[in-house]
Amino acid sequence: MSEAKLNKLKPFSGPRADFLDGGDTPRAFLERCLEVIEARDGEVRAFVTLNIDLARAAADESAKRYGGNRPLSLVDGCPIGVKDIIDTADMATEMNSKVREGHRPKADAACVHALRRGGAIILGKTVTTEFACGVSGPTTNPYDAARTPGGSSSGSAASVGAGMVPIGLGTQTAGSLIRPASYNGTYAIKPSFGAINLGGVHPVCGTRDHLGVLGASLEDTWRAAHHISAMGGSAPGHRGMAGGAELPAARKPRRLALLRLGGWQETDEKSRAAFNALMESLRAAGVELLDPESDQDLAALDAAAVDVETPARDIMCYEMRWPFQAYLDAGHKLSETITGYLDHAKEVTPAMYAEALTRRDEARARFAAYASEVDAFVTLSSSGPAPLDHAFTGSRAFQTAWSVIGFPAINLPLLAVDGLPLGVQVMGFDGADDDLAAAARWIDEL
Amino acid sequence: MSEAKLNKLKPFSGPRADFLDGGDTPRAFLERCLEVIEARDGEVRAFVTLNIDLARAAADESAKRYGGNRPLSLVDGCPIGVKDIIDTADMATEMNSKVREGHRPKADAACVHALRRGGAIILGKTVTTEFACGVSGPTTNPYDAARTPGGSSSGSAASVGAGMVPIGLGTQTAGSLIRPASYNGTYAIKPSFGAINLGGVHPVCGTRDHLGVLGASLEDTWRAAHHISAMGGSAPGHRGMAGGAELPAARKPRRLALLRLGGWQETDEKSRAAFNALMESLRAAGVELLDPESDQDLAALDAAAVDVETPARDIMCYEMRWPFQAYLDAGHKLSETITGYLDHAKEVTPAMYAEALTRRDEARARFAAYASEVDAFVTLSSSGPAPLDHAFTGSRAFQTAWSVIGFPAINLPLLAVDGLPLGVQVMGFDGADDDLAAAARWIDEL
Repeated sequence: MSEAKLNKLKPFSGPRADFLDGGDTPRAFLERCLEVIEARDGEVRAFVTLNIDLARAAADESAKRYGGNRPLSLVDGCPIGVKDIIDTADMATEMNSKVREGHRPKADAACVHALRRGGAIILGKTVTTEFACGVSGPTTNPYDAARTPGGSSSGSAASVGAGMVPIGLGTQTAGSLIRPASYNGTYAIKPSFGAINLGGVHPVCGTRDHLGVLGASLEDTWRAAHHISAMGGSAPGHRGMAGGAELPAARKPRRLALLRLGGWQETDEKSRAAFNALMESLRAAGVELLDPESDQDLAALDAAAVDVETPARDIMCYEMRWPFQAYLDAGHKLSETITGYLDHAKEVTPAMYAEALTRRDEARARFAAYASEVDAFVTLSSSGPAPLDHAFTGSRAFQTAWSVIGFPAINLPLLAVDGLPLGVQVMGFDGADDDLAAAARWIDEL
Repeated sequence: MSEAKLNKLKPFSGPRADFLDGGDTPRAFLERCLEVIEARDGEVRAFVTLNIDLARAAADESAKRYGGNRPLSLVDGCPIGVKDIIDTADMATEMNSKVREGHRPKADAACVHALRRGGAIILGKTVTTEFACGVSGPTTNPYDAARTPGGSSSGSAASVGAGMVPIGLGTQTAGSLIRPASYNGTYAIKPSFGAINLGGVHPVCGTRDHLGVLGASLEDTWRAAHHISAMGGSAPGHRGMAGGAELPAARKPRRLALLRLGGWQETDEKSRAAFNALMESLRAAGVELLDPESDQDLAALDAAAVDVETPARDIMCYEMRWPFQAYLDAGHKLSETITGYLDHAKEVTPAMYAEALTRRDEARARFAAYASEVDAFVTLSSSGPAPLDHAFTGSRAFQTAWSVIGFPAINLPLLAVDGLPLGVQVMGFDGADDDLAAAARWIDEL
């Protein structure tokens, strides 16, 4: 594999250790982030809003806590970018739509609230596509400004990829965490569906919306995601993320299942070769790899993941009727991307929706049954590095199925093609976020 | 049973038939509602806001549709009061809290949107207790102004009970549809959990919040609830209300199970006698009644319904942390009732929450198993008529369990004690709203 021309990422966990022994401070860390933003965000355009004064004050408060050896959590003092479909009480939340222009929430979203209570520094709001499902924003890819950063978590992924902040909050309904993480060379965790409370996050599709974290290291990413789940709570009726506050120890998977999904056929030769080389290194390390080319059951499962996208479209469009159709009926304007979904929704009856849920449940059960067969699934995170395009944020063919079934997924920024990052996706089983992280960590450290 | 001094209720279904043959018009119906409001709302104080101009314009549009024999739905032209924790694009939505003072939503809630699309007339916003879980509003009981109208759907229940509107929208997290319906002599349907989309309704407890309808007749109430579910959609991942747009035909239940719940021991003798007399008339009509006094299995089930309130309290307080703790942390003020819940929430860990969900699921499974034994459960809707109190909206001991397990419930305003209304609660099984309505209709028509 060739190396991506990696920007200098800023994991938080290293400096955080220095905060405790006085070798570094949260304020100094924040100032280094601000320097990168100053240097790079003119071109990358990851941020919509920054609240620098409040961030500096929060960093100084954090420094006092570290000075007294009393940090509030593992994210105390960590600067964080928040996708602008997530409510913040101190900053407008405009969702890249005229509908929400100037909208100032009364409270932080559950995830932001949890981070602030843990001492994290909410530095700014990052660019989202329109309501995380419509037209793109102005963000460019930090590796090549002619390329998309991916979407819809465009700004969070680009800001972490550019080394502006160690942690960005994002959401994924189809592929909006894993794909931009792949394009921007960051880690990402999409937890099990429902493991993180989505209160205060604008909905797209309630059965598929996931809140997740993009980070500069797997340790940072885990710590932030787990903190949010533990302090901000799970979605009502769901259990929180399994595991503890610290990233689980690496555990060598006994057996992994390769998936091709809809994305492999779109994937260019160099990207395939980079992925195949990594798979060879896993085999060489003694991991058994099931391959759908030689395993009929797995091939059928792989096909089922593609098939589920048809009912999933009905489900998404049906659920999008509120609030999007209500916005239209109240006189607001939405892009043709979104009105196109609403047009499809007009054809979906309650009975069709119920039937689509049944098909989704059947697919979920088929994948769940593999928990006794393999430790995790593995595939690419995107069908190549970031495309040369700004209007289109890239194919979702490698990401949608795992959003639909709601099982956890992790992006590892392990590959590079022509100097551009390309991610590997490790995918686990519902509720077993900790087991997935243990396997992903082992692969990351390989 | 003595008769309640019933106000003249206004079912909508009769006049609606007249709209079609020209004997009445939606505008004339609306004006009659406005006359009652003018005459009575000075004392009852059911409404926070009225949008009379828009209502009259909507009624005139509806009249044109009926004139052309093209009504949009069974609720076309029906004036509706909307509990003020439910978003309306044309009226402020203040939730009886300073936190939301002047708040003007960008879109109608899913339920309001569905009603407006069906031609219903959104006449005004009705008083709620603070965020549907805190301090009471100014509404009085239309039967006796010294008494509570119940809560939290105070204004919707009182407005229907006083004959101001035929339909009011409410919500129930513990007992806020069934109890006020009992106190105000209205029908109410709390559908199966998830059968109606709660988009645009302020959350209290996501696993227990139900949107429902209070109405002047069972037919009105069913039509409105089913319309909302069919057009506004179910909650994401849930199936909509079973059955069709029209109230199911009456079906005599073969066997009913009496429940005592926590409420029977609080119930006064006259209310017990009124209920017992109704049960005798059911027996006389040939309905078999299982009684927990003579049926050990049923007694154990009855006890389980009381027991589930303990984990249910942990669940509710845990889920209330967002947004209520976030409001506090953003500098807003909440009543001691709500901060009391948040104090309890501080003691609930994610593991305790998960354990409480498991106990809730066990109780739900025990009740679900009775579907093969009985057609429905029956009990009182409240432990007597409305108390002489305005600060306290009445005991929830007859209502909480069915909110926790999420099965459907219907209030029938069949009893009266000392000239005050008292409701009978008929309770069914998850997803079988139509079967419940068929049994309730039979009892109502007995």
